[in-house]
Amino acid sequence: MPNNVHTRRAKAGLPPGTLIPVGEKRVDHTTLTLIEYNADTFSERVLPNAEACRELKNSSAVHWLNIEGLHEIDTLQQIGDIFGLHPLVLEDIATTGQRPRMEDYGDYIHVVVKMLYRRGDERQTFSEQISLILGPFGVLSFQEVKGDVFDPIRERIRAAKGRVRGAGPDYLTYRLLDAVIDNYFIILEDVNDRVELIQEQVSDHPDPAIIHDIHQLKRDMIFLRKALWPVREVVSGLLKSESTLIVPSTEIFLRDAYEHTVQVIDMIETMRDTLSTALDIYLSSMSNRMNEIMRVLTVMSTLFIPLTFIVGVYGMNFEHMPELSLRYGYAGVWAVMGVTVFAMFAYFRRQKWF
Amino acid sequence: MPNNVHTRRAKAGLPPGTLIPVGEKRVDHTTLTLIEYNADTFSERVLPNAEACRELKNSSAVHWLNIEGLHEIDTLQQIGDIFGLHPLVLEDIATTGQRPRMEDYGDYIHVVVKMLYRRGDERQTFSEQISLILGPFGVLSFQEVKGDVFDPIRERIRAAKGRVRGAGPDYLTYRLLDAVIDNYFIILEDVNDRVELIQEQVSDHPDPAIIHDIHQLKRDMIFLRKALWPVREVVSGLLKSESTLIVPSTEIFLRDAYEHTVQVIDMIETMRDTLSTALDIYLSSMSNRMNEIMRVLTVMSTLFIPLTFIVGVYGMNFEHMPELSLRYGYAGVWAVMGVTVFAMFAYFRRQKWF
Amino acid sequence: MPNNVHTRRAKAGLPPGTLIPVGEKRVDHTTLTLIEYNADTFSERVLPNAEACRELKNSSAVHWLNIEGLHEIDTLQQIGDIFGLHPLVLEDIATTGQRPRMEDYGDYIHVVVKMLYRRGDERQTFSEQISLILGPFGVLSFQEVKGDVFDPIRERIRAAKGRVRGAGPDYLTYRLLDAVIDNYFIILEDVNDRVELIQEQVSDHPDPAIIHDIHQLKRDMIFLRKALWPVREVVSGLLKSESTLIVPSTEIFLRDAYEHTVQVIDMIETMRDTLSTALDIYLSSMSNRMNEIMRVLTVMSTLFIPLTFIVGVYGMNFEHMPELSLRYGYAGVWAVMGVTVFAMFAYFRRQKWF
Amino acid sequence: MPNNVHTRRAKAGLPPGTLIPVGEKRVDHTTLTLIEYNADTFSERVLPNAEACRELKNSSAVHWLNIEGLHEIDTLQQIGDIFGLHPLVLEDIATTGQRPRMEDYGDYIHVVVKMLYRRGDERQTFSEQISLILGPFGVLSFQEVKGDVFDPIRERIRAAKGRVRGAGPDYLTYRLLDAVIDNYFIILEDVNDRVELIQEQVSDHPDPAIIHDIHQLKRDMIFLRKALWPVREVVSGLLKSESTLIVPSTEIFLRDAYEHTVQVIDMIETMRDTLSTALDIYLSSMSNRMNEIMRVLTVMSTLFIPLTFIVGVYGMNFEHMPELSLRYGYAGVWAVMGVTVFAMFAYFRRQKWF
Amino acid sequence: MPNNVHTRRAKAGLPPGTLIPVGEKRVDHTTLTLIEYNADTFSERVLPNAEACRELKNSSAVHWLNIEGLHEIDTLQQIGDIFGLHPLVLEDIATTGQRPRMEDYGDYIHVVVKMLYRRGDERQTFSEQISLILGPFGVLSFQEVKGDVFDPIRERIRAAKGRVRGAGPDYLTYRLLDAVIDNYFIILEDVNDRVELIQEQVSDHPDPAIIHDIHQLKRDMIFLRKALWPVREVVSGLLKSESTLIVPSTEIFLRDAYEHTVQVIDMIETMRDTLSTALDIYLSSMSNRMNEIMRVLTVMSTLFIPLTFIVGVYGMNFEHMPELSLRYGYAGVWAVMGVTVFAMFAYFRRQKWF
Repeated sequence: MPNNVHTRRAKAGLPPGTLIPVGEKRVDHTTLTLIEYNADTFSERVLPNAEACRELKNSSAVHWLNIEGLHEIDTLQQIGDIFGLHPLVLEDIATTGQRPRMEDYGDYIHVVVKMLYRRGDERQTFSEQISLILGPFGVLSFQEVKGDVFDPIRERIRAAKGRVRGAGPDYLTYRLLDAVIDNYFIILEDVNDRVELIQEQVSDHPDPAIIHDIHQLKRDMIFLRKALWPVREVVSGLLKSESTLIVPSTEIFLRDAYEHTVQVIDMIETMRDTLSTALDIYLSSMSNRMNEIMRVLTVMSTLFIPLTFIVGVYGMNFEHMPELSLRYGYAGVWAVMGVTVFAMFAYFRRQKWF
Repeated sequence: MPNNVHTRRAKAGLPPGTLIPVGEKRVDHTTLTLIEYNADTFSERVLPNAEACRELKNSSAVHWLNIEGLHEIDTLQQIGDIFGLHPLVLEDIATTGQRPRMEDYGDYIHVVVKMLYRRGDERQTFSEQISLILGPFGVLSFQEVKGDVFDPIRERIRAAKGRVRGAGPDYLTYRLLDAVIDNYFIILEDVNDRVELIQEQVSDHPDPAIIHDIHQLKRDMIFLRKALWPVREVVSGLLKSESTLIVPSTEIFLRDAYEHTVQVIDMIETMRDTLSTALDIYLSSMSNRMNEIMRVLTVMSTLFIPLTFIVGVYGMNFEHMPELSLRYGYAGVWAVMGVTVFAMFAYFRRQKWF
Repeated sequence: MPNNVHTRRAKAGLPPGTLIPVGEKRVDHTTLTLIEYNADTFSERVLPNAEACRELKNSSAVHWLNIEGLHEIDTLQQIGDIFGLHPLVLEDIATTGQRPRMEDYGDYIHVVVKMLYRRGDERQTFSEQISLILGPFGVLSFQEVKGDVFDPIRERIRAAKGRVRGAGPDYLTYRLLDAVIDNYFIILEDVNDRVELIQEQVSDHPDPAIIHDIHQLKRDMIFLRKALWPVREVVSGLLKSESTLIVPSTEIFLRDAYEHTVQVIDMIETMRDTLSTALDIYLSSMSNRMNEIMRVLTVMSTLFIPLTFIVGVYGMNFEHMPELSLRYGYAGVWAVMGVTVFAMFAYFRRQKWF
Repeated sequence: MPNNVHTRRAKAGLPPGTLIPVGEKRVDHTTLTLIEYNADTFSERVLPNAEACRELKNSSAVHWLNIEGLHEIDTLQQIGDIFGLHPLVLEDIATTGQRPRMEDYGDYIHVVVKMLYRRGDERQTFSEQISLILGPFGVLSFQEVKGDVFDPIRERIRAAKGRVRGAGPDYLTYRLLDAVIDNYFIILEDVNDRVELIQEQVSDHPDPAIIHDIHQLKRDMIFLRKALWPVREVVSGLLKSESTLIVPSTEIFLRDAYEHTVQVIDMIETMRDTLSTALDIYLSSMSNRMNEIMRVLTVMSTLFIPLTFIVGVYGMNFEHMPELSLRYGYAGVWAVMGVTVFAMFAYFRRQKWF
Repeated sequence: MPNNVHTRRAKAGLPPGTLIPVGEKRVDHTTLTLIEYNADTFSERVLPNAEACRELKNSSAVHWLNIEGLHEIDTLQQIGDIFGLHPLVLEDIATTGQRPRMEDYGDYIHVVVKMLYRRGDERQTFSEQISLILGPFGVLSFQEVKGDVFDPIRERIRAAKGRVRGAGPDYLTYRLLDAVIDNYFIILEDVNDRVELIQEQVSDHPDPAIIHDIHQLKRDMIFLRKALWPVREVVSGLLKSESTLIVPSTEIFLRDAYEHTVQVIDMIETMRDTLSTALDIYLSSMSNRMNEIMRVLTVMSTLFIPLTFIVGVYGMNFEHMPELSLRYGYAGVWAVMGVTVFAMFAYFRRQKWF
């Protein structure tokens, strides 16, 4: 769980809209990639600096400006100036650790979501903040790090395949969102595999190490819930928005994306339930096993206690102990002890103690 | 619990509406059965391919096209073309693992529900996705596997019995939904029988095996809740829909179906409560029994501890131990031990320890 | 908890509105009792068959037709024909195991509630389904068994006492509902007495038998909640209904009935809370007592362990054990043991272990 | 927790509005005190009987008729006649055990709240039902017992201090309600003191008696929640009411009273949370202490077990035991035992068992 | 947790709007600081008394009157007179222990929030009540103690930096609120650090002291929830308010502040979840460790019990015990004991008991 909480402390007391670099610096310098397309034309290039955006704004094609890296404050500031973004929007883009949300500023719509990813072979899930600005000029997408989640979309635009080349920036926004949501399923399936593995293990061979895994997964759940629940509100906000930036034919796709966010939440809740049940099973199987041990051992100890007393009796050194000089005294003691053990055993059995 | 989660992974990044076969392939080839009827006429036949639907679309009778098997992508695509279905609808039909839901696309209404069934003698419950399309042309029903749940309806249409021949496709949709819901009751009654059996067992002869059954049923509950809760929203969506596809006289039947879905949810919740109580009873009876054992055994051990000490004393080999040479020393020790046991016994009894 | 779940299984796949006898057959034959009254006139008679209702329908008096026994399908069918009831309504009346609810069919209002009752001296509570039809012709009331809960109302109509003779069928419906709700209080007070008895017992002399009572009551709570919670919605539905069958002056009485249903729910919830607290008290008192026993016994055992070791030492048979031949060796051992016990005792006391 | 449940049983089956004395009889006879005032005039007197109210009704001053004692059914009936109260309102006034609520009857508003009080030094809290009728004629207040909670208001009216003399009956109603709510704070502060005392005790010196206090307070919480939660709805009902009986300038005061009821609920919920935490602390400290004892004792017992075995070995009477005749056999045994104890001790320490 | 509950008791029965000093007296005397500014002018001074405000009211600049210390009732009264505040507002300002809330009185808006702070090095968090009055004249801010949270804002106004000098009193109100909310993050980050520290400790080296920290943090959570949850309603109230005091351009800033309050709540809830999980981990690790100890010790004890019995047997003093005179009797006993131990050990191992 990357800790994004500390990012706000540095800013307490500063006026709203102050741009200072907060969050871990994750890439060396900011890269701006511009894709410009409509049904007929297509161009793709890396821009040298933010200023280069200025003249593009008025062309009639759809523009998709992808900004990777959020630490060059000047670049963000220039983009804000060129596209007329409110200082608070710039601040939100630059400040990672935002809750996913959607806000309609009239001229443009600002969407914040979380991208989930893994680092190498680690089990831990990290999240990266992705901000999208949908305006009449096209779409601006801001990523903390270089990512490949948008590659298939880029590929399809290049190849002029599917609906995307003919549709407007709202459809592009939907596609970007949908790519992020599809990515959730990949992460969740991995988590789900671990949950199911644990579910099998607790039934088959529960051992104390499993409890650590369960708690680790519960912590992951807290993290995932926090990152993914609000995405539903984001999509539902776009659906209910009366902005003219979203054309009616896109709504049906947003409804589909909404349905997927509901499925995401459903999966998380089902995994939580499954984990809780797994924990219950583990605890009751542990407790059963411990009881088993304690019971058998206690029964065994108890069987020997009277015997040890009996042999103690005949270890006493009294001068007058008539049993000691009996011919079959020793054998008699063994007989008495045998009967005692047998009686106790029978009693325990009848009580179903073991 | 069949795992439908993995079905999405293969599609991450692909554009919406892409038809690729996901989900387990359950039948060999797709079968299309067409029933065409109105108050006076009736015909029923198996169509050779999807193209055969094209000319039927304009006739004035009610058409019910039942599609069994969802793996022939071309066939689905053709049906989508002929009946003007949105690519997302086709994708939802082909992708099993959808949450039950209802969506009004204006020209037609798309309903997804889950059919529950058993395989042979197994206790486990499986679910199959059923999609219904209600349009002006009639009803399309998509099933993953050949099923017999709709047979009674087919039979009644053939026999021209009841209301169904005179009514429109909305009433047919209701009948199909109702058949699915009625089927839930059969499954739930079986589950309920097991719940009640467990409830009796925990009271009468609780043993550790029962906990496994309880947890198994709790897992089934998670599965059933996930599959059945949303059905209420489906029926309520149809009721509240302002679509002209649903005539007012059908509403009263939908209200009845809604009431049945509420009963289904009620049953699930009552079973959950009953299971929780059963688990509590089991745990407290286990804990009672363990305490019982531990207490009796501990008391017994404690009774012998002072006795063993006493006999140990007179097993010592001191030269000067006046008691050893007393005439009634041995008898005296027995007397002392008798009194000790009696006193402790009395004390334990007064403390109500056993 | 009578199990009404199985009543649906027999009907799966049949068309809606099919009348087949479901539920336990509880009376031998159906009895129809008609009371006809207005401010001035009154008549009461048992009808020979359903046909006899036909001519009454148009008279201007208030009619109250009470039907006891729901197994004569033909009779129900005839009543349905005569009073123009929808087949689904008839099905709901005949199928016990309905959730309490209210439905406005325009021409008439259909109300389903549960009547609670005891059988003889049994503690268990059973429920019987009561259906009321409020129409312009009067009120139809359907009971599974002969009951006496409506007797006081019948008595007052006969005696022309109170408001009921002057008011319309909506007021009669209110009175019947109110009688059922008043009856809930009698049952709930009995349950409440048991809850309070348990609350006292767990504080004063908790014993393991009590846990069985607590769980029994918790099961009763599940049953009562399921039967009584929806009644609030029933009354609130009548209140909010815009049906012309309910005149404004009756509303104030329905508001009163609504308040009573809220009190019923309040009582159930308070009893649930009280039971939970009682269970907690029981468990912590049990655990306290067990800990008490274990602690005292363990302390006692531990006191003797070093003593037993010491006497064991001097039971050894070494040839050279100088203590054995000391004059006061034996007395010395007793002294050492005395000091040991005293020291351990003091230590335990200081640690507040007993 | 005074048990008000039984008050309804006697009335089951009787028509609504029947006045029979239910609830404990708490005062000997009913006292009627009338205060009549406006900005200029003031009079206060005890009325001989209800009839005496009749002529007052039309005067233009504000009337406040306080009725103490609810057992004289005739008196209540007369008051109902004179002021035109609905029979159901009279029934609700006479039947203690009502849930707090507010109902607008058009001509007048009926408010039911609970007054909390203590009896002498007892810790237990009791509740008394207070009914207020706000009508154009003024305010009727019904109390079960003589109380002094309204004294300060009476005092201020007499002294013509503050706003109350110039304002109408709605403001008087607000003042009476506010006095009741202010009184809640006194009771809740006492309860809160006990909660905080317990919170300190569980941390400092937890002993088993505390659990009894915690459960007692939890029961009190159930009682307080039941009595105080609905008061918020009462005040909010007055605020939202569109009755002309409440003038706009009173609304600001009702909003203040509403805020106080929210604070009351807040306090109860905070106390509940604090109690739960206290219970958790107690349980974990008890469990810690028990584990501590068991562990130390078990370790101690275990230390002696091998020693007792060793001395047992040399207590055997075999003829050929070479160790017995060794010169330093006895000393050697002590050495072996010393080493054994030391090794076990070291092992336990390294395992951090004590 | 400072206890603000007692502040109400003194006032029970008094009329609303009575100003008596309640709450701890925290500063010696009240300080009034006036800042007057618009885009061009700026002045700042400490006022000698409340009267000095009177003439300022009509100037066209924005006024910010900061009042530190709430115990001089006369001063509050004068301020109330001058600015036309309702007596209830004054009462709320003077009575600390209010729930955060926002109320629109038409002419002005009253906002109550809690400021959190630490005293020196203490871990405990305290809260101070801050009341803001937004009127056409400007902003009144009331603090219990001298605080420095508003210093950065003061600094910026002085320096004529940023938006604040050109904007109206509503923007100033937003800035003051935002300063308070930013301050929450500082406190919450500290608490969060402690929560994460505990989370690490329970996994790495759980010891009983940690449970005390967990419960302390849980109590802090109760306190923080109570203070911070309602702030969301405050900001949302300002957003939804239709007051003309708030100009549209400020709304975008309030939405940002709203988002921050949602983040605050999110943080608290995440910390609560994390704490619960930490507690679960602690409890299961404690229980695991205890079981470990008990099991190993019990196994060890059990191993020696049969041995002690065997040596007891040959400590008996019977005259006829053939084994005693055997040449290898003693060695044989050791052999038997070795086999016994080995067999039991093997059995325990196979059962996986240790």
